[in-house]
Amino acid sequence: MSLVVQKYGGTSLATVERIINVAERIVKKYNEGNQLIIVASAMGDTTNQLVKKMNMVSDNPTPREADMLLTTGEQISIALLTMAIQNYGCPAISLTGSQACIKTDDKHNRAVIKDIDNKRIKKELKKGKIAVIAGFQGINSKEDFTTLGRGGSDTTTIALMVSLKADRCEIYSDVDGIYTTDPRILPNAKKLNFISYDEMLELSSLGAEVLHPHAVELAKLYNLKLYIASSFNNNIGTIVRGVKKMEKKRNVTGVACDSDVIKITIKKVPDKPGIAGNIFTRLAEHRINIDMIIQNLQYNNLNDISFTIHNSDFKKVKETIYNIAKNVDSRGVEIDQDVAKVSIVGAGMISTPGIAAEMFQAMGKVDVNIQMITKSEIKISCLIKEDGAKKAVESIHNQFNLGEL
Amino acid sequence: MSLVVQKYGGTSLATVERIINVAERIVKKYNEGNQLIIVASAMGDTTNQLVKKMNMVSDNPTPREADMLLTTGEQISIALLTMAIQNYGCPAISLTGSQACIKTDDKHNRAVIKDIDNKRIKKELKKGKIAVIAGFQGINSKEDFTTLGRGGSDTTTIALMVSLKADRCEIYSDVDGIYTTDPRILPNAKKLNFISYDEMLELSSLGAEVLHPHAVELAKLYNLKLYIASSFNNNIGTIVRGVKKMEKKRNVTGVACDSDVIKITIKKVPDKPGIAGNIFTRLAEHRINIDMIIQNLQYNNLNDISFTIHNSDFKKVKETIYNIAKNVDSRGVEIDQDVAKVSIVGAGMISTPGIAAEMFQAMGKVDVNIQMITKSEIKISCLIKEDGAKKAVESIHNQFNLGEL
Repeated sequence: MSLVVQKYGGTSLATVERIINVAERIVKKYNEGNQLIIVASAMGDTTNQLVKKMNMVSDNPTPREADMLLTTGEQISIALLTMAIQNYGCPAISLTGSQACIKTDDKHNRAVIKDIDNKRIKKELKKGKIAVIAGFQGINSKEDFTTLGRGGSDTTTIALMVSLKADRCEIYSDVDGIYTTDPRILPNAKKLNFISYDEMLELSSLGAEVLHPHAVELAKLYNLKLYIASSFNNNIGTIVRGVKKMEKKRNVTGVACDSDVIKITIKKVPDKPGIAGNIFTRLAEHRINIDMIIQNLQYNNLNDISFTIHNSDFKKVKETIYNIAKNVDSRGVEIDQDVAKVSIVGAGMISTPGIAAEMFQAMGKVDVNIQMITKSEIKISCLIKEDGAKKAVESIHNQFNLGEL
Repeated sequence: MSLVVQKYGGTSLATVERIINVAERIVKKYNEGNQLIIVASAMGDTTNQLVKKMNMVSDNPTPREADMLLTTGEQISIALLTMAIQNYGCPAISLTGSQACIKTDDKHNRAVIKDIDNKRIKKELKKGKIAVIAGFQGINSKEDFTTLGRGGSDTTTIALMVSLKADRCEIYSDVDGIYTTDPRILPNAKKLNFISYDEMLELSSLGAEVLHPHAVELAKLYNLKLYIASSFNNNIGTIVRGVKKMEKKRNVTGVACDSDVIKITIKKVPDKPGIAGNIFTRLAEHRINIDMIIQNLQYNNLNDISFTIHNSDFKKVKETIYNIAKNVDSRGVEIDQDVAKVSIVGAGMISTPGIAAEMFQAMGKVDVNIQMITKSEIKISCLIKEDGAKKAVESIHNQFNLGEL
């Protein structure tokens, strides 16, 4: 008898009909002789609806009360899912984060799991019950409810797997695995049978909706195999796992494209030590994630400093950027929203020279001009004009024969 | 400094705007120098919406999971209400039934409060905070969430008042007090300044929406004064309290009318000992509340047994009644849905003869025929044809000069 942890995301539980569908799948798995722990997210857009109400009653909701409000989302879905399972004559019990003793630190809205006291869960499993547990939430030292922040249900899932030494972990959403590139952009994208932790992390823009980077890091830390599949069909999904010794690593695993970026250039900054540090410290104070950074020395000891940020961060950082630009005696700020970031990822590229060159050639073939380049050990990213993104992805995908996996 | 417990019902919290309105009232009370405990019900029809979903996923939801689902209703309202209060710069904290340590027995859906461990509440009050507590819910010995059944938030309110030895208790809803009769039926109905516990209990059809009978019983037991008023205006409400010694008791306090009843007659039952016991035991097994009962000996040692039940109970009891009728060799069953029950209530009628006669005369004046009569110490009820109800209420109201209070 295997102990399996399954996680179902909000889209998989968005309606009563989908909850019943998920219950059927769970019952089937149970009847195959497995012990089951189910982690459930809030139904569809429940969380958004609650947030909307919250912003109507308060200009600045306190984090504790926000957590009090938002934790109801998963509580509703675990109750309904458990009833739906029981309706098939299958024993099940729902547990909130507090009942499952998922203990976190005191940081409301982005708490970190400290420990799971798994006695109650074990007791219910021993009685033959399916334990249906609220993802995304826990309880702190004051017995107040906390939430784990973005991707929290994935974190709950991995933490439960570690705590209960589960045999298998299955993450279900509306996406049936990880592809060589976004199938909506390129129809001949191929589903990967497996992907390494590092590749998954670097491909976050392809996979973040499916599995949160923090959960991938945890899985990597404990060397846990995760199975990613869709709750809407029975297609074979993708396994996220470590790279086996002596396994031939793929040079390029996938091509990602992110149009949700914005390029900011602070023009002609005097070339003095500490200026870049100054600029990026100020941005960090506003909790803005900087992605790519380039600094070009121009004539007259003046630098152009360019960086990219996420579109959604732009509004809250706009004023700060203009202030910084003034402070460092720059000659102005240039904003370019008409850009996209195309990346290739592959664990094999560390030991294979020439991958970058091949990528640039592929873009040259289709007349795509590269504005910025960054490279990590297993990832190369290029910033290009947004209207060239589709043909760039297609050309790179062909260049590395990803359609023929 | 007084400790005041305030309860706000679902209608008072039905929308975000109403929550903000209630928050304003609470902040005003706090700024007048009171310590405050707020008991909140679920927002408007939240509970109905949850029940609808519940019935879609399950044919027969288990009571534990139903409680897991329904307790989210109050959790949402306490979080939003607390944020709204904090938004006025006023310190407040929300507590679920489990966090407020409202300990109940294990009967899900209709749990009984056993004890309140008020340490957490006291701690928060001591810090100067308004404690906003989820009504209707508690926690059992297994640390599972329970609900208290109908009128549960009222029960929570009284229990908190007793546990914390509060100085005052205020129950807010969309009704601004108890009237001599339903003002929707009779525009010259007068609001009562006070009403006794017993009168309130007997007038449940006038007041059950405002204050649940179980809460009235508890208040009577502990001799607690309750103030009933509307959260939508500042009108003076009604005080529910014990009758003071030597106080002149009113013969008739109010006239109630309940059209939601149904009259059932089991015809020509052989007059043998134990037959009535048999019939009503079987009905009790189906948890049907019988209201009025009349047994008339007919010729030939045959009895007609008539009783009234609540309309909403009829569907689930219909088959049973026909079975019982067959079992006791009756000659058939007669169902009359076209009836209404008109009642007068008054603590003074115990010691004043002739009240019943006056009531019957008042109905006679407007040609209303009486089908059944029951009488307790402080209440007289008559079953009449439904279309005579309005004129009967009006005539009785005039007879006892209730419009001139």
